[in-house]
Amino acid sequence: MIFMNDKEIIINNILNRRSVRKFTNENVDEKDLELIIKSGMSAPSALNLQPWEFIVFDEEEILEFMVDLHDYSKMFKTATAGILICGNMEKTIAEYRELWVQDCSASIENMLLAIEALNLGGVWLGIYPIKHRCNKLINYFKLPENIVPFGIIALGHPDDENKKQDKWDEKKVHWNKW
Amino acid sequence: MIFMNDKEIIINNILNRRSVRKFTNENVDEKDLELIIKSGMSAPSALNLQPWEFIVFDEEEILEFMVDLHDYSKMFKTATAGILICGNMEKTIAEYRELWVQDCSASIENMLLAIEALNLGGVWLGIYPIKHRCNKLINYFKLPENIVPFGIIALGHPDDENKKQDKWDEKKVHWNKW
Repeated sequence: MIFMNDKEIIINNILNRRSVRKFTNENVDEKDLELIIKSGMSAPSALNLQPWEFIVFDEEEILEFMVDLHDYSKMFKTATAGILICGNMEKTIAEYRELWVQDCSASIENMLLAIEALNLGGVWLGIYPIKHRCNKLINYFKLPENIVPFGIIALGHPDDENKKQDKWDEKKVHWNKW
Repeated sequence: MIFMNDKEIIINNILNRRSVRKFTNENVDEKDLELIIKSGMSAPSALNLQPWEFIVFDEEEILEFMVDLHDYSKMFKTATAGILICGNMEKTIAEYRELWVQDCSASIENMLLAIEALNLGGVWLGIYPIKHRCNKLINYFKLPENIVPFGIIALGHPDDENKKQDKWDEKKVHWNKW
């Protein structure tokens, strides 16, 4: 038996994370959902403005709505929970306004890594800046004017054979010059 | 003595990650730099296009250039290495063109978490879409036309008292409705 040290455990979780699109019917524990959101809120943000809000959902009706959100949201047929992360435009500053997109992306990646760590599975659905996707969600959740839907994670207990992919490509690494 | 399980080790790394802006003069091991880049390349991307390129630097002249890049890049006075991640516009598709920003952000967050795991420290400097920051880097590294500088990580061995911040805010979590 080989024990991994903490570094290896953490790095392996990053290297082995994969997108999961098929799930068992077992529900996601509320405590786990909270840990996932907590991980999302730990992301760095420009000027530490933390411009995010989270809608967590596991109600049947909402999951069904998500199936037809767009052509690539069919994984909600089996996902047992979802998280919609939104940008709060009141938490942005003129010169750096567009950096909220980067902050919310880092937050999603934190959540995907937490999901992997908890032996759950998830996949990131891009919403912003695709207008018709945004509008459907604004209408459905009746979002206030300053709240912009940014991205969705579909999640649950994995029920697939999807393997992680080795994306290492040495040609993309440039040492000290282009 | 209390042993943490793997889940706790990984989640704690996410919750405890912090920005480090002051470093000792010890160099970052090349093997560690490679593990960090590998982590960056493991991020998910829209349509799996992996639209990123990495310039890793540790040469004195480049680190000095970075100090004066803009008003908030002074941490390069002590940083012993840096990573500039760029977007490759040839790896984007018209309808989803702007999603490369989200892909590169997820990649940076992976690298920051790997840095934390390796007992190093780092901080994210926003570049894109702030035009004068982009232009300086395009000129300095003589980047090809299709390569857009996106963000920089300054890194090294931590030499500061900066503590991680608890950003948990229950009011930002909305269960099943706004």
